[in-house]
Amino acid sequence: MSNYIRPEFASLEPYVPGEQPAGKTYVKLNTNESPFPPAPGVRERAAKAAEGLNLYNDPDSRELTKKTAEHFGLSPECVLMTSGSDEILNFAFITFCGKDRPAVFPDVTYGFYKVFANVNLVPYEEIPVKDDLSIDYRDYLGIGKTIFIANPNAPTGKALPLNEIEEIVKSNPDNVVVIDEAYIDFGGESSVALVKKYDNVLVTQTFSKSRSMAGARLGMGIGSKELITSLNTVKFSMNPYNVNSMTAAAGLATLENPEYTAKNVAAIVKNREYTTEKLRELGFEVSDSSTNFVFAKHPEISGEEIYLSLREKGILVRHFTPQKIKDYNRISIGTREQMEALITALKEITEEYYEISDN
Amino acid sequence: MSNYIRPEFASLEPYVPGEQPAGKTYVKLNTNESPFPPAPGVRERAAKAAEGLNLYNDPDSRELTKKTAEHFGLSPECVLMTSGSDEILNFAFITFCGKDRPAVFPDVTYGFYKVFANVNLVPYEEIPVKDDLSIDYRDYLGIGKTIFIANPNAPTGKALPLNEIEEIVKSNPDNVVVIDEAYIDFGGESSVALVKKYDNVLVTQTFSKSRSMAGARLGMGIGSKELITSLNTVKFSMNPYNVNSMTAAAGLATLENPEYTAKNVAAIVKNREYTTEKLRELGFEVSDSSTNFVFAKHPEISGEEIYLSLREKGILVRHFTPQKIKDYNRISIGTREQMEALITALKEITEEYYEISDN
Repeated sequence: MSNYIRPEFASLEPYVPGEQPAGKTYVKLNTNESPFPPAPGVRERAAKAAEGLNLYNDPDSRELTKKTAEHFGLSPECVLMTSGSDEILNFAFITFCGKDRPAVFPDVTYGFYKVFANVNLVPYEEIPVKDDLSIDYRDYLGIGKTIFIANPNAPTGKALPLNEIEEIVKSNPDNVVVIDEAYIDFGGESSVALVKKYDNVLVTQTFSKSRSMAGARLGMGIGSKELITSLNTVKFSMNPYNVNSMTAAAGLATLENPEYTAKNVAAIVKNREYTTEKLRELGFEVSDSSTNFVFAKHPEISGEEIYLSLREKGILVRHFTPQKIKDYNRISIGTREQMEALITALKEITEEYYEISDN
Repeated sequence: MSNYIRPEFASLEPYVPGEQPAGKTYVKLNTNESPFPPAPGVRERAAKAAEGLNLYNDPDSRELTKKTAEHFGLSPECVLMTSGSDEILNFAFITFCGKDRPAVFPDVTYGFYKVFANVNLVPYEEIPVKDDLSIDYRDYLGIGKTIFIANPNAPTGKALPLNEIEEIVKSNPDNVVVIDEAYIDFGGESSVALVKKYDNVLVTQTFSKSRSMAGARLGMGIGSKELITSLNTVKFSMNPYNVNSMTAAAGLATLENPEYTAKNVAAIVKNREYTTEKLRELGFEVSDSSTNFVFAKHPEISGEEIYLSLREKGILVRHFTPQKIKDYNRISIGTREQMEALITALKEITEEYYEISDN
């Protein structure tokens, strides 16, 4: 680290993305990607856009914004397209937080909130989740801070019902409540319904999961005209051309094929139920998930050991080190074949464990 | 503007990108784009990448970083690929400036520096350029602030020689000197040569101009291992997957065709000389440009009038309002046909002006 870095960042800990292995081929269940290719038409539309790359993309992403707004039955002024949902989350920290406007989020949630707060020099509070790792919405009532809640939450996969989110929004009228719905298509009730009723709710979604576009970087913020105007001020002060023309074209092709997305989501949900059942048969504790991953813990074998044994068998899952969740692994839901490979591997790992224990 | 925006941003003035017209077709000479399509291979490689969009892109952009580093004869640790050069500039403001580390740049330069400073709450000083709009390097010697210099400068098109840049770098050993080389391929001496000698110089370049990839968003920072490590800390705290997989693929295809870029640059330089000569014949004041645009002023007709008259004739150029440069227009260099259309239009505009004056 050079001494040119600003002193406040001397101990800044960046976000650590899930491993993207080079070389060896893994069954990749570690970053909640879709196992299904992008929608029909994406390749062709992106290629067409590539032909015109010498010109700047539309900084307002007008066509894509309009189509997205239609999808949600909202006006385009209520939608801001971004480079992944990470960008809209970062903009929310920059726009709606500050030295005197702390952020607040659960202590078990998307690990990036803490990093966004730190890099933007925003003070923050982490509210402990309950013993079963679920969020108690009452902890957020009238809290008077900028609230970030992933719903469904990661890496737990648990969702809050809409009426509890609404209570949080209603009780914090002077603060923005950000609902990060990266996984909403796989379960749970969307808070987009609240955008028409409340000025202070910002819903973020992504094309990375249900829409098979993680590598294109496309996300969005959905909120009142007032919130989107403010966020646009920051966007145009930081990254005016934020959605490149190939990504915008791919996004449009994807939105034009809602049946394709729906079919994939249904397959993931089915594979999730299969995986949950099989994991429970193997003795794992797995709570019901509303996402495209499950969060599983073995009563005896440590989370780290399972992670490492799976890795050795060519299967990548995500293991986190914080105390409260170190016994778990987050397992993305892939194709039926991938999940069968996972279950076979875990069967071997548990059998081997009990054999050794028996000797 | 909602009252949810942080108070410091109440008067934040975003960057205003050059107009991207929808509907009517213009001869578009207003955003310094390349008139030539992207390199052969870009379409195919981007399309191939689009097939795998369901997976996240490589957050380290390893292949592209390696190829770019090779291009400059540097090690990959000295290169950071970003989403346009705007992103590396923003990262530089975030990483190397701060409340106690002001930024400094010329008062006539890329308009985004001021915006980056404001959105990142960084105090800044603008140093007046000389009467001929050139930068006096002596103004920056031992200044003890984080320095941003576009070289060649925009919108003037004027370049500083390498030895003057080196004096600035040498005399500010405790501060980072950022040399923004968006236009370097069209003229001037690159400061990449200084990266091996000095820890404190960061050179930024882009694929948007000479490499015909404005719509893909690809740029880079080139600096000492220390600077790049610090910038990576911020990148991974803000936008880990910053170069999407289609853009990375397009970038690789472009770097594999250096002859194509060289041929286009030669054509632009030739058209620039043609345009400069013709503008002078029409009575315009045009200084020699080291970029893919010229900065031209008529002794009698106001900059705004020329801008508006050209617009009416279907030709877009860029007009700025600040006092020092309001008499000028920045005219991007396109194909020979585009420049002929410009000259024809300007001939009509000037003739019409003198006819009316004579009556």
